[in-house]
Amino acid sequence: MNNDMTTPQRAVVLLSGGLDSTTCLALAQQQGYACYGLSFDYGQRHHSELAAAERIARAADLCAYKVVKLDLSGIGGSALTDPSLALPQQASAGIPITYVPARNTVFLAYALAWAEVLEASAIFIGVNAMDYSGYPDCRPDFINAFQIMANLATKAGVEGRTLRIETPLIALSKAEIIRAGLAAGVDYAATVSCYQADAEGRACGVCDSCRLRRKGFREAGIADPTRYIA
Amino acid sequence: MNNDMTTPQRAVVLLSGGLDSTTCLALAQQQGYACYGLSFDYGQRHHSELAAAERIARAADLCAYKVVKLDLSGIGGSALTDPSLALPQQASAGIPITYVPARNTVFLAYALAWAEVLEASAIFIGVNAMDYSGYPDCRPDFINAFQIMANLATKAGVEGRTLRIETPLIALSKAEIIRAGLAAGVDYAATVSCYQADAEGRACGVCDSCRLRRKGFREAGIADPTRYIA
Repeated sequence: MNNDMTTPQRAVVLLSGGLDSTTCLALAQQQGYACYGLSFDYGQRHHSELAAAERIARAADLCAYKVVKLDLSGIGGSALTDPSLALPQQASAGIPITYVPARNTVFLAYALAWAEVLEASAIFIGVNAMDYSGYPDCRPDFINAFQIMANLATKAGVEGRTLRIETPLIALSKAEIIRAGLAAGVDYAATVSCYQADAEGRACGVCDSCRLRRKGFREAGIADPTRYIA
Repeated sequence: MNNDMTTPQRAVVLLSGGLDSTTCLALAQQQGYACYGLSFDYGQRHHSELAAAERIARAADLCAYKVVKLDLSGIGGSALTDPSLALPQQASAGIPITYVPARNTVFLAYALAWAEVLEASAIFIGVNAMDYSGYPDCRPDFINAFQIMANLATKAGVEGRTLRIETPLIALSKAEIIRAGLAAGVDYAATVSCYQADAEGRACGVCDSCRLRRKGFREAGIADPTRYIA
């Protein structure tokens, strides 16, 4: 346990290699947590995002870093894991086809398993309910429900310790996230947000994720360091 | 969606190959669900349990069956996935070392992803809060909290459909489970409960799981068809 004042509390930080999770990691470190990075290789078509996560993890001062291979592609149902589904080029009404069924639930469940072994006191996830894509598993109500479930699921909960699901970005606009990240020393040139970045990590500039990112830098009044193909 | 009277509702059924999950599958089928079986290869040392799951799945009339490979062994913390930890030969106070951190949370998260793609109305899990091993993620409070979280996590929840986590065994004794399963046509000789069964599926007879199983058949007054080594 890490309850004394001298040992930093541990946190598992979900790291996708994108703008949000990289900012989230920087904020967790700024808060003094000893951070354990966790990424997933889940058959995502934007594989250069995972390469970015690995670069960012190496550059950050992590206690440990783990890439877990997830067998989600067999479950299907998303344009992010099914190459036969086309990626949308513009915002749509409702939940978009890039939504991966129960993805954050699966990610957080794994993080919970690791957090339990580490006796971590928090899991950080860079979800955002402002400039987001309408995914149900990014909403504050979902995060709160997961935290309640997590504390019933685990030994820590039975023994009276509490695990928090920390979402420092949840109420921030993309522009505010970028400003907070720059203040915490994030190098956004290293992050990849695009759903279909090329092997060199260059972004398409037209997918939902690229559009949100571009808008964020524009609104923050900060030069966008992203390398765009178009 | 399967709301009309003619199409059976779909259910994802977690199948470990043990006594409880095999009974749970038989009860789901008895209730008229179109069943989709889901097993996990999570680096468990009792690999013959998984072989039993595959045999049981083939013999059952499933709509589909999936074995998902989970990378849990890297997370550690359990005698079921870490060969360097010894298996206990007798019941202990508190949460035993065979507890796999957040295992049911990870299993249910995957089931939720598949249930969402299938538009299933239920996930069946054979947890039991009576003759069980003291795992926190077998308690009714955990299941209820998972169901609330699941309905916030998914498209189905947003669109007003409800997914139920069904636990038909939760309040039954092991003897009652066995009687219910026999009535539903379960062949218990095909199931493997032992944490360290040999390659032929023969049970050790001394681990926690074997002791609970033996006691169940004894209390049900039914001959135990398990092939024990000792």
